[in-house]
Amino acid sequence: MDDLYFEDFAVGDSFVTDSESVSEAQIIRFAKEWDPQPFHTDVEAAGRHELGGLFASGMHTLGISFRLFIATEVLAACNIAGAGLDNLRWPRPVRPGDTLHVEIETTAVRPSRSRPDRGSIAMHYVTKNQHGEPVMAFDLVHIVRRRPPAATTATIEDDLGAP
Amino acid sequence: MDDLYFEDFAVGDSFVTDSESVSEAQIIRFAKEWDPQPFHTDVEAAGRHELGGLFASGMHTLGISFRLFIATEVLAACNIAGAGLDNLRWPRPVRPGDTLHVEIETTAVRPSRSRPDRGSIAMHYVTKNQHGEPVMAFDLVHIVRRRPPAATTATIEDDLGAP
Repeated sequence: MDDLYFEDFAVGDSFVTDSESVSEAQIIRFAKEWDPQPFHTDVEAAGRHELGGLFASGMHTLGISFRLFIATEVLAACNIAGAGLDNLRWPRPVRPGDTLHVEIETTAVRPSRSRPDRGSIAMHYVTKNQHGEPVMAFDLVHIVRRRPPAATTATIEDDLGAP
Repeated sequence: MDDLYFEDFAVGDSFVTDSESVSEAQIIRFAKEWDPQPFHTDVEAAGRHELGGLFASGMHTLGISFRLFIATEVLAACNIAGAGLDNLRWPRPVRPGDTLHVEIETTAVRPSRSRPDRGSIAMHYVTKNQHGEPVMAFDLVHIVRRRPPAATTATIEDDLGAP
């Protein structure tokens, strides 16, 4: 993918990630390290849980989803940091064997008032399973760089005698 | 800690976790798996970044914070699932060597209208570094169990001849 900068994003742009499957072993391994609750780490205990069986930590689903979006390289050139995350919901559990992908839509594009080198881009993420059912959704604001001023850079490099 | 159930929570309750330090190697290891962006995985690239050096993935800080809260066992008996997360912000970067703890306050307690066995508890989390500076904050709603009706349980067990 070509390098994308603030100027390249518009409200309504959409992106779709690759898919990734999640196994029982991965759910348990993640949860033992980051979210050690029995309904994420123990098949037998999860069977007695209200949700009726092992399901992935919500942070695991978040991690998979964010990794899938990073792999698209949409943010590879421009990302400075995440500014904030809102409206994170998990409408149904992620089960062993589920295959997830993420659909992302740009919902707002705002230049920075104080920093001319950057702006913010709000994106709505929806992670879906192999049945097309949403398992997670959230809104994330990314702080991103504006496109570097190519002409100015060339002039400076010329002045410095750079190749 | 004694088992806590929905009835045991009240607005204004506060909890403080243990502390945990985060090393450069841990920041890089986490990011390589879950958030592979050069300012989280590569010291040299991070040195050229607007934030001036390596910093932890926001998901890493979230994972550490949630693990610290789970370790308090406040939710050990009652937690059913997370309902939603809002207002997640990262006001300053987490750097190698930082030591984090989390301060949690109960902000709302609501019985379920449709399910008499449960309710929801909203909690405001603030993760602070060793200088007492907030590095992350968010609001998380937990769906939790009401206290099981002990008398009824005893009667059923008596009827079944259980010890």
